[in-house]
Amino acid sequence: MTVVKSLRELLPNEKIFYLGDTARVPYGGKSASTVERYSLEVADILIAENAKIVVVACNTASAVALRKLEEHLPVPVIGVIRPGARAAIGVTGNGHIGVIGTRATIKSGAYEQELRRLSPDIHISVRPCPLLVPLIEEGWLDDELTDRVIARYLGPLVREGIDTLVLGCTHYPLLVHAISRALPKTVSLVDSARNCATAVRELLVQEQLSAPLANSAGLEIALTDAPDTFLGVARRALQLDIGDVQLREVLHAVR
Amino acid sequence: MTVVKSLRELLPNEKIFYLGDTARVPYGGKSASTVERYSLEVADILIAENAKIVVVACNTASAVALRKLEEHLPVPVIGVIRPGARAAIGVTGNGHIGVIGTRATIKSGAYEQELRRLSPDIHISVRPCPLLVPLIEEGWLDDELTDRVIARYLGPLVREGIDTLVLGCTHYPLLVHAISRALPKTVSLVDSARNCATAVRELLVQEQLSAPLANSAGLEIALTDAPDTFLGVARRALQLDIGDVQLREVLHAVR
Repeated sequence: MTVVKSLRELLPNEKIFYLGDTARVPYGGKSASTVERYSLEVADILIAENAKIVVVACNTASAVALRKLEEHLPVPVIGVIRPGARAAIGVTGNGHIGVIGTRATIKSGAYEQELRRLSPDIHISVRPCPLLVPLIEEGWLDDELTDRVIARYLGPLVREGIDTLVLGCTHYPLLVHAISRALPKTVSLVDSARNCATAVRELLVQEQLSAPLANSAGLEIALTDAPDTFLGVARRALQLDIGDVQLREVLHAVR
Repeated sequence: MTVVKSLRELLPNEKIFYLGDTARVPYGGKSASTVERYSLEVADILIAENAKIVVVACNTASAVALRKLEEHLPVPVIGVIRPGARAAIGVTGNGHIGVIGTRATIKSGAYEQELRRLSPDIHISVRPCPLLVPLIEEGWLDDELTDRVIARYLGPLVREGIDTLVLGCTHYPLLVHAISRALPKTVSLVDSARNCATAVRELLVQEQLSAPLANSAGLEIALTDAPDTFLGVARRALQLDIGDVQLREVLHAVR
């Protein structure tokens, strides 16, 4: 939803169909092959909705499943890793970038690979932060306990000398104040959600897929499980105007 | 796995086939209908393995799906809620019982219902503790930050005057030391995993299903997703001797 928020700010006349796989989240602790399978399944729903492009608004799915999605989908696909890596390279002064994310994102090495492709000599420090998503979903966004968890996760990266930190999970922008408190002022934050939205705008222009200016915006939200906690946090923290929510089922057959 | 550990201690000559739905956990934040569907799907795998009884070794699935499982499965089914509630009624002196668990378990009201069925005048205080499972999976079992989170969750229950606390999630026995530190010595802990194992032994005797004494024990473990973190914690914290692990797929078809 942080990507949706940035997309709506940058592209006010595009229609967005958002699908959240709430029946199977979090993806961040699961294996690459499972994340790949889930990503392909939910992307099929977006294609059936006539999406002109597919935005993989999740670092874990982008890190693990982007290539498979590009192979299988009949429309352009864009993830959050490449735009975030590009922004980080543009921001760093000392050439030492930190990356935080879920276990699966960090384990995939996707940021390292992308950062090194753009700048082979770059110095990178990474850290999986599996407690941050649950803390966000608990709603403890500006909270002394959350600050202490963040300090523990980020302390080693700061001591190693990073001057740029990539928020490699689309939940983390909700903790941007808490994360800033834990860092020296000299460290810049790179928000993978916002940079993804910028890259989407570029892609639409490049592929001549931008909506006509007269187009009316729209946000349709579908989830694979009931919305309880999900919508509470999105409404409160992102101040997104969320109307009715559809429920889409992903059926399961036991083999 | 905490239930498996207790079962092996109490029933050393029973064969156990353990299936963990790691591809879709945690269940604790999901809706009742999704938890019900997932529970029926994984139970089918156990029936195909010729299980003589099915133990629902998860408070969320027990709270939400036990009746549906009893209707659909051709063998006796036993959950963790009823044994835990019975033990709590036996332990409490002042008739005020606390229950902690996942969001879904607490929201279901299953413990309240079961406790009131056994003792209509009982006083109950409940609290969902959604951060405890992620803290356990991070391995921060004896840790000052975990202690602070627990103190925040349990403080209100203590102030309300409970003298008994049900650990209504099969992960929580791994935090038994930390939870004890947060409670006055006058509060007794009821471990739903251990009480479930005792109830399984009773059920086997009652249904004349106990394994012959000469039977050799066995523990077979299957997971629906790769085992990384799962096995690390189980091996380290429970000191269970875990051999090879099978991977079982639960297939997904998009509707």
